[in-house]
Amino acid sequence: MLIDKSPFFRVLKNDPQSAARTGEITTQHGTILTPAFMPVGTRGSVKAVDPTDLLKCGSQIVLANAYHLTQRPGLETLRLFGGLHKFMGWSGPILTDSGGYQVFSLAALRKIEPEGVTFHSPYDGSVTFFSPQSVVAAQTVIGSDIMMCLDECPPYPADYAPVAKSLALTLDWAAKSRAAWDPNSGQALFGIVQGGFYPDLRAQAAAAIAAMDFPGHSLGGLALGEPEAERLQAIETAREILPKDKPLYLMGLGTPNDLIQGVLRGADLFDCVLPTRNARNGQLFTRFGRLNLLNSRHKEDPNPPDPACQCLTCQTFSRAYLRHLLKNREPLFSRLATIHNLTYYHDLLAGVRSAIKTETLAQYVLDFYAAQKAQDSPD
Amino acid sequence: MLIDKSPFFRVLKNDPQSAARTGEITTQHGTILTPAFMPVGTRGSVKAVDPTDLLKCGSQIVLANAYHLTQRPGLETLRLFGGLHKFMGWSGPILTDSGGYQVFSLAALRKIEPEGVTFHSPYDGSVTFFSPQSVVAAQTVIGSDIMMCLDECPPYPADYAPVAKSLALTLDWAAKSRAAWDPNSGQALFGIVQGGFYPDLRAQAAAAIAAMDFPGHSLGGLALGEPEAERLQAIETAREILPKDKPLYLMGLGTPNDLIQGVLRGADLFDCVLPTRNARNGQLFTRFGRLNLLNSRHKEDPNPPDPACQCLTCQTFSRAYLRHLLKNREPLFSRLATIHNLTYYHDLLAGVRSAIKTETLAQYVLDFYAAQKAQDSPD
Repeated sequence: MLIDKSPFFRVLKNDPQSAARTGEITTQHGTILTPAFMPVGTRGSVKAVDPTDLLKCGSQIVLANAYHLTQRPGLETLRLFGGLHKFMGWSGPILTDSGGYQVFSLAALRKIEPEGVTFHSPYDGSVTFFSPQSVVAAQTVIGSDIMMCLDECPPYPADYAPVAKSLALTLDWAAKSRAAWDPNSGQALFGIVQGGFYPDLRAQAAAAIAAMDFPGHSLGGLALGEPEAERLQAIETAREILPKDKPLYLMGLGTPNDLIQGVLRGADLFDCVLPTRNARNGQLFTRFGRLNLLNSRHKEDPNPPDPACQCLTCQTFSRAYLRHLLKNREPLFSRLATIHNLTYYHDLLAGVRSAIKTETLAQYVLDFYAAQKAQDSPD
Repeated sequence: MLIDKSPFFRVLKNDPQSAARTGEITTQHGTILTPAFMPVGTRGSVKAVDPTDLLKCGSQIVLANAYHLTQRPGLETLRLFGGLHKFMGWSGPILTDSGGYQVFSLAALRKIEPEGVTFHSPYDGSVTFFSPQSVVAAQTVIGSDIMMCLDECPPYPADYAPVAKSLALTLDWAAKSRAAWDPNSGQALFGIVQGGFYPDLRAQAAAAIAAMDFPGHSLGGLALGEPEAERLQAIETAREILPKDKPLYLMGLGTPNDLIQGVLRGADLFDCVLPTRNARNGQLFTRFGRLNLLNSRHKEDPNPPDPACQCLTCQTFSRAYLRHLLKNREPLFSRLATIHNLTYYHDLLAGVRSAIKTETLAQYVLDFYAAQKAQDSPD
């Protein structure tokens, strides 16, 4: 592949009052303006929406999962199609998670050893061995613009000793992943900072990962049920140590509040199932708080979910009609609700990028919290 | 309402070799070129697609169901919104079925009397009384461009005596519906020809309905499991008697073959759940026969479902990707498959209309059957 001459990441402007910054990530499939939210398309489909919908919502990059894609459709099929971009019909950038989270979430189905992890497939029971090297190779076939190292995500809460032991494994795997990766491939590889919620372990993780010279950094092991204060402390600890000229990705975050708090601490990329999953359950995010469409007060409401929103859903349909679709399990509902929630998430960060440029981020954040008067349920 | 000066129905051209014709139906929400297929949107949503999708598929008119809409969202909500068009965001014509089919399909939940039918709602058990008059009134609130009379649909097979008795009730209800309808409302009312598969009863039904001078006619009680020969005989019997200057609607039909056979016997309108329901189950209709996407031979197939099709799905996605979505129950699948199947149905009848104009219908029909080499399952 050609070596791209543009730098992978460029900070365009730093916020003078916080660690927030706006920048751009350049990939072979286009440029991502940061901070950016990545919709989750685990198996090569962001649930209920197509690539054109995603572009109209403002999505710049989608996230997929290397573990799930190796199970279905399988690497042979993806190789035949020339990668996931062509297979799913999405020509923008793709980031893939390595399957490290599945090492955590499929705990009953795997065995961890120094060389890698053995999974029993939840699809058909077949056995797969994932090593740091094989996961880089899989993401190479998938054609991810941004790949993740295989890691181990410790549970929360967890004692110091097992978290320290897990971190040693993650750092060993990171070094092996780094060695297996071709820096001239046009595909970036991010190192993942684990270490749980022990500040010295997070700091140790950040320093070790920083020393390995990855194109970007991820913070893993967050949003596992820990209090917000511990989560923000972990982000700050890592951020202090990681070099500021590389992008920082907060894995699995989060709520609109998590995005704002992450941005203020220097985060550049986010992903979460929340906007898409909650959409399918009838919970919409708006400038004025969350809207639960099952609430009977929306039964005859002719207003759109968010009158200030420019998405297809808000421009076309009323809360009453959307509630009718939801109550009757009409399959159209999931798409319309997902389009709105993704638009809301992307608009929130587009506003952040613009506010950083105009040095009005503090006011933007104040306005965000002032407007979030929870409509139906607290954030 | 204004009285539209255009005739409700105009035959544009008769096929010299069959009873087929092409024409146009003019409503307050636009003109429908016939023969036309109407996608089923029972509760005010054609499953998995939005109004923009429908327009792109070639849908000219959608079908909804007065019975279901009175249950949910209810007439009060629809009145508040100024009718179903505004509620569902569809500005084209709408035809509503009366609930007569539900008199048949919800047999365990209803009681039929000369004055009307009492339903126990399958939604919440509440009791609703439907009379011929109340059903016209309900469809007036819904704002249907084409309303149906309340009727009773006898089961198949059924003995002569109960079918004759049922027909007498349907004809009595048709007369009461006709009397309750305002011919200057801008909303058309169709009389429904029942009579089961007894030719003398079908003929009696057609003559009686014709005498009531409705703007259009429907054939009910078809596609209940009867052999095709009986079905076609019933259509021909009624068609011989009904005036040719009014549109003929074959209720609940059908397969692509049913549409072709109906067109050749003078039918102008069709509706069926087949293209939308089968789409969601992975069965696609193509020029070359039906395609079952669960079939493993599509696992790595880079071709679109139908290479000659111009729909979004065929222009963007491979059989392999669509199969992957279906196998993994990705919610995007239903929309993509529905878009294809509706486009196929609309294209089939657009071809018919064009062939009638150019006096090439016989060849079009020959080509249709020659190309339908069932791919995965017989038609």
